[in-house]
Amino acid sequence: MPVNLQTPAADALLPINGLLLGTAEANIKKPNRKDLLVMQLAPQATVAGVFTQNRFCAAPVIVAREHLASGKGIRALVVNTGNANAGTGKNGLASALVTCVEVASLLGCEAGQVLPFSTGVIMEELPLERIIAGLPSCVADLREDNWFNAAHAIMTTDIVAKAVSKQITLAGKTVTLTGIAKGSGMIHPNMATMLGYIATDAAVAQPLLQRMVKHACDASFNCITVDGDTSTNDALMLIATGKSEALAITDAQDAAFDKLQAAVTEVATLLAQAIVRDGEGATKFITIKVEGGKNIAECRQVAYAVARSPLVKTAFFASDPNLGRILAAIGYAGIDLDVQHLKLYLNDVLVAEHGGRAASYREEDGQRVMQQSDIAVRVLLERGTAATTVWTCDFSYDYVKINASYRS
Amino acid sequence: MPVNLQTPAADALLPINGLLLGTAEANIKKPNRKDLLVMQLAPQATVAGVFTQNRFCAAPVIVAREHLASGKGIRALVVNTGNANAGTGKNGLASALVTCVEVASLLGCEAGQVLPFSTGVIMEELPLERIIAGLPSCVADLREDNWFNAAHAIMTTDIVAKAVSKQITLAGKTVTLTGIAKGSGMIHPNMATMLGYIATDAAVAQPLLQRMVKHACDASFNCITVDGDTSTNDALMLIATGKSEALAITDAQDAAFDKLQAAVTEVATLLAQAIVRDGEGATKFITIKVEGGKNIAECRQVAYAVARSPLVKTAFFASDPNLGRILAAIGYAGIDLDVQHLKLYLNDVLVAEHGGRAASYREEDGQRVMQQSDIAVRVLLERGTAATTVWTCDFSYDYVKINASYRS
Repeated sequence: MPVNLQTPAADALLPINGLLLGTAEANIKKPNRKDLLVMQLAPQATVAGVFTQNRFCAAPVIVAREHLASGKGIRALVVNTGNANAGTGKNGLASALVTCVEVASLLGCEAGQVLPFSTGVIMEELPLERIIAGLPSCVADLREDNWFNAAHAIMTTDIVAKAVSKQITLAGKTVTLTGIAKGSGMIHPNMATMLGYIATDAAVAQPLLQRMVKHACDASFNCITVDGDTSTNDALMLIATGKSEALAITDAQDAAFDKLQAAVTEVATLLAQAIVRDGEGATKFITIKVEGGKNIAECRQVAYAVARSPLVKTAFFASDPNLGRILAAIGYAGIDLDVQHLKLYLNDVLVAEHGGRAASYREEDGQRVMQQSDIAVRVLLERGTAATTVWTCDFSYDYVKINASYRS
Repeated sequence: MPVNLQTPAADALLPINGLLLGTAEANIKKPNRKDLLVMQLAPQATVAGVFTQNRFCAAPVIVAREHLASGKGIRALVVNTGNANAGTGKNGLASALVTCVEVASLLGCEAGQVLPFSTGVIMEELPLERIIAGLPSCVADLREDNWFNAAHAIMTTDIVAKAVSKQITLAGKTVTLTGIAKGSGMIHPNMATMLGYIATDAAVAQPLLQRMVKHACDASFNCITVDGDTSTNDALMLIATGKSEALAITDAQDAAFDKLQAAVTEVATLLAQAIVRDGEGATKFITIKVEGGKNIAECRQVAYAVARSPLVKTAFFASDPNLGRILAAIGYAGIDLDVQHLKLYLNDVLVAEHGGRAASYREEDGQRVMQQSDIAVRVLLERGTAATTVWTCDFSYDYVKINASYRS
């Protein structure tokens, strides 16, 4: 069950002027569910994105990366769930390109102006004919107030659709941001996670938009893990339609750049956390803060060692303060740690110091924290000033159940 | 359930001349089970060992490493299960030292000639009084034909006791080897695994014995993973009592060195594989061979990415040939792979080539292999001549069950 997470009401998701969305039931893997999404962008819109670093990256990732780099001006995005079109060789590339051609012909733009995305099972042929057959329904459905359906149309094992809206003011003008994401398993992003789309009606020059999406991703999607498995299809896209009344952002020194970047990062962080809260089989949401490191890299090493440990994750599932497992994970993280100087906190409870259990630690205090559904682990390395935060979930029977039956 | 693994019969385990073993029920964690083991060595015996690289290594690991390095000649080993004496700070160190003092006083040697070992729950105080109370029973029980009980006395979540014997001939003289090991979870060794003890009646100079144990460990315990968690207490010890009639091995150029090293490595490999076959919740034993790499390091990176992936491991549990998950794991292993040149086999079935599913691959062939309990994954990188093999098991409901209830 998702941990303290609900889908926002449809009317809580704010339309973005200059961006239309349309969904369809294309029967890609299962009948009677929305599984195809088209987004159409106003001509002046800018788009930036980051993609998975998995060497077996999916065919649509290869195509989207090329189309984005060509600088032609992106006019549409097309997303299917139910099939990842990854590990599909040359046929997979052809299918991704044909999908772009079909969308372009329906919307009256060039194929190179369309970005394709897929998510679902790996190493199975994309059912191209069903996608082509479904595209006209998507186009017929195109409208601005369709984010709620769009968030549902990209889900795989997600239980809850992930979406968030936010408004800020730039020099007196209102700017709106809405984002959606999907992902629940195979979540250990490296550059970006499964699929995330954030749009704003602000106007942002493309190089600045790229900088903004990289910044937001590093602070959000690149700080989460469900199972340590980096997907073949990860992509986070940031779209700026330029339809708000706010002045265009063309200079990173501009105060509006910082303000918008902070808002984008906030939306990305909420979406990334939503993915963890809806992590496959999750019953606990765990925030791991590592402070006092020599640099961020070593803080991340320690945080991810804890976040990935199946023993730590099953202890959280059991609400069992078997906290020696956290020490063990810190110990094998691969940094030349002096354990005498380390402090471990669970929420506000000091658990370990001087290389062992803290004198003040009481089992019942650990037990009290472990029974909560939102838990913070705080590790003080006390050898520098760097810090980082990583979000993860516990490891339950249901993770195994979901992944032992994913294809059926 | 352990995968194709049984404890050998008590009389299949060969005594090692010059090594006595005694066990006791010391009530360390649970009543009515052997949980304490003393091994007494003949005066001329040499001992070598490798220990965990976990920075939160246990107090007994610190003490054993120091005593071994002091060169005083080791006369005894003492092992308790039920408590790891790790994450226990200065008190833990004192408890490990007191244990050595007690053993030394019972056996008439120096405390510095005793190596202590512990395994069990982390960050809980060692129940020193119970250990001290149990030691006289161990000493009263000392005998050569006691390996079967010794193998049982070091178990934690192990279902099956792990032990193996082997005889070889060195220049016409018979040499015997017997080894025992424990471990089932928190298995991702880095230098050695949980606890392994291999003894031979051969005579081997200590520096050569050290070289032999390092070689054996690198080819066995350092090639397995159950859950990716490196223990705080890993140790593999190799003991040579020098009681056989074979000539002492004092030169690594000696043919007998190679022959004994090969036998030690074989025993170590069988014990390491036994740990995986009895991996927590295991239903499948999986051999991952990576061939054609530029170097062994990158082969290991790929093999461990596959071996650690929860998605791959749950697919094996489900006997589901969802083999795209293996491609995804290879893809995120972190090497600059050209996926066009990679080939993936499941046993003798070619699954993937040219960046996607092999034209000859049939789902029913994958299904047939997945239903077996011993499965080989073979990855051909085709960019060099290096190769490696890693052994792992699947990920089942029972792994979660065992680790969500380990302390209770």
